[in-house]
Amino acid sequence: MISEAMRRLGDSPSAIRELFEYGRKRKEEIGAENVYDFSLGNPSIPAPESVGDTIVSLVKEKEPCALHGYTSAAGDLAVRQKIASFLSETHSFPVEREMIYMTCGAAASLTVSLHAIAEKGDEAIVLSPYFPEYRVFCEKAGMKVVEVPCREKDFQPDLPAIEKAITPRTKAILINSPNNPTGAVYSEESWRSLSDFLYDFRKKTGRMVFLLCDEPYRELNWTGKTAPFPPALYDAVILCYSFSKSLSLPGERIGYILVGSNCPEKKAVFAAVCGAGRSLGFVCAPALFQYAVAENLGKTGDLSAYRENREILCRALKEAGFEYAPPDGAFYLFLKAPDGDEKTFCARAKEEELLLVPSTSFGCPGYARASYCVSKETVLRSIPAFQKLARFYQGERK
Amino acid sequence: MISEAMRRLGDSPSAIRELFEYGRKRKEEIGAENVYDFSLGNPSIPAPESVGDTIVSLVKEKEPCALHGYTSAAGDLAVRQKIASFLSETHSFPVEREMIYMTCGAAASLTVSLHAIAEKGDEAIVLSPYFPEYRVFCEKAGMKVVEVPCREKDFQPDLPAIEKAITPRTKAILINSPNNPTGAVYSEESWRSLSDFLYDFRKKTGRMVFLLCDEPYRELNWTGKTAPFPPALYDAVILCYSFSKSLSLPGERIGYILVGSNCPEKKAVFAAVCGAGRSLGFVCAPALFQYAVAENLGKTGDLSAYRENREILCRALKEAGFEYAPPDGAFYLFLKAPDGDEKTFCARAKEEELLLVPSTSFGCPGYARASYCVSKETVLRSIPAFQKLARFYQGERK
Repeated sequence: MISEAMRRLGDSPSAIRELFEYGRKRKEEIGAENVYDFSLGNPSIPAPESVGDTIVSLVKEKEPCALHGYTSAAGDLAVRQKIASFLSETHSFPVEREMIYMTCGAAASLTVSLHAIAEKGDEAIVLSPYFPEYRVFCEKAGMKVVEVPCREKDFQPDLPAIEKAITPRTKAILINSPNNPTGAVYSEESWRSLSDFLYDFRKKTGRMVFLLCDEPYRELNWTGKTAPFPPALYDAVILCYSFSKSLSLPGERIGYILVGSNCPEKKAVFAAVCGAGRSLGFVCAPALFQYAVAENLGKTGDLSAYRENREILCRALKEAGFEYAPPDGAFYLFLKAPDGDEKTFCARAKEEELLLVPSTSFGCPGYARASYCVSKETVLRSIPAFQKLARFYQGERK
Repeated sequence: MISEAMRRLGDSPSAIRELFEYGRKRKEEIGAENVYDFSLGNPSIPAPESVGDTIVSLVKEKEPCALHGYTSAAGDLAVRQKIASFLSETHSFPVEREMIYMTCGAAASLTVSLHAIAEKGDEAIVLSPYFPEYRVFCEKAGMKVVEVPCREKDFQPDLPAIEKAITPRTKAILINSPNNPTGAVYSEESWRSLSDFLYDFRKKTGRMVFLLCDEPYRELNWTGKTAPFPPALYDAVILCYSFSKSLSLPGERIGYILVGSNCPEKKAVFAAVCGAGRSLGFVCAPALFQYAVAENLGKTGDLSAYRENREILCRALKEAGFEYAPPDGAFYLFLKAPDGDEKTFCARAKEEELLLVPSTSFGCPGYARASYCVSKETVLRSIPAFQKLARFYQGERK
């Protein structure tokens, strides 16, 4: 009667959402201040004031039919020009407005890109741990997902493992840096060696592999170095950007797809993006927010709040004896389960009112994800609970 | 290297868009006031002032993280409750908030609904003439499109033709009333006989056929009677609504899917909608506009402008000797090509600077669509051009 695959997907609760709902109930029971909810990656810092100001000016000054009317399918040309100029200047690398397709957020950027490139029998490599929806998006586009674990010591891409997993059917590698859930920021060296390998692979096999770069956390980078700009390091790049985290606008669904300026047959690739957008129902991203983000390029919410949370939490967890992945970017800490059993670890954490997501959801056992996009108070109040959790494991080990 | 189907789709210009682009250039050449551009269905009346006021209040009064944060995947529960209450009251028919899925516009409503129900080998009946993207959306969802012409005398659904076209593989009939491009509003009788037939078909074959009702023009109804509310007339209804036309917000991409309260296994159907939304990347419709439309339910722009255009245009065209479909709703006039050749007719119209879309685009020969969502001045100034066009055909016939 209906698509069983879609029904199952709609009925299967995401582990993250389930935990979040548990948290909601638990807060009602014992008070919000007593639940340390690190479950969701929902920005906790407000959008910069200038975004609100821009929206109000647009509503007051722009003629309503022009403001709320359809833009062209790929987005308003002036908006795309502003983004192209901003990116070109920021990264000292030419970006063309004709290669920018405005989208209704990060998920849309990914699904449209995947449907644009997927052909029957294609495989997509995802580097685990990974955002669970990658599997959903790839499979819906008809691609087989091939998981390749990252190096455990630093959660950088494991090139020898990728070399082993790549096949003539590999169409794309999904790259998410800064990473959800590990917080890793891929180094220039990781990018270079991956890029070199893919050029070499292309020379040997004639097969061009896309790097599909999911970059909603680009600005949430605590390394002090700007993250490499993928189109400058490899040609066949499709970059999926969203303003959700940088401008704290996750609910407004606004982002873009950028096809790299050096991408072979880029016009055909961009046309396929347009075709996929059209056939999935994603033409003309929300107009008001197209104009609003174009006036706020390069701005961010006050990211120092995340930076401070990260410092407090890292210090406290280290002192308590926990191990975690290098917390270089995004707003996630990827904590090692002391005995390697993430399910028990998260269940035990829950008893201390600490809501952590078991890493099983991300295709990688042995860890728990803490999203520190919460208030500083929550972080501070959670420390005794983390300490108690640590003592429990230290006691057990003895 | 990429999906050829998507590339072709992205490269194939829509006839409507092409004409619109021609118009843009032509206006630069001879002045906007001298081109009578009836090509696009882009609302020409401003959004009601209350929409702008609501947006400004939301920005000024709601905490930014709450305003711009993620809502739940199906949309904010309070928003869905308001819509459910509004619909229940307006149509005296129970509507449940749990059966409402907020979407990023009409196209999204349709693609999500189609992917929710489509199974391998399914067919979708579309009633021609029809909005050209229906074919694109159905085929992308893996459905075969079966075109069934409407009755030419009044462009109501042709039940005997539907009876002939239906098969055990028919999963859905797409219904668009008020109709683009004909302007027909399906009568209660049309709905009743279709509904009776489908119940009967179900009894005989065990096959439940969905009515997928695309209703962006619901409020643009000049018959003086409220159009029937599909879920009250048939059980297996998936209603796709958009605020694009009623509130003149086409660029903001905000609408909803409603699964009828009497739909068999409605929870499974709704779950499939959620799953399709998730896998296509359509969760959490744009948040600010979810809140904005919920405060403006039942409001519309000043539709009397369309009504006036319609009256002026109908009178002038009738006097000039043209025939057209019953102009009961939406903002389209479906003009008969005097000699049945719509291509020559539209080309000849272009010589008079009249931009009309040949009905070939809509899967039905012999007509031209005029979108009268333009300024009154454009309508008035276009009349001599229509008269000249009529004289040309009258002269030829002699």
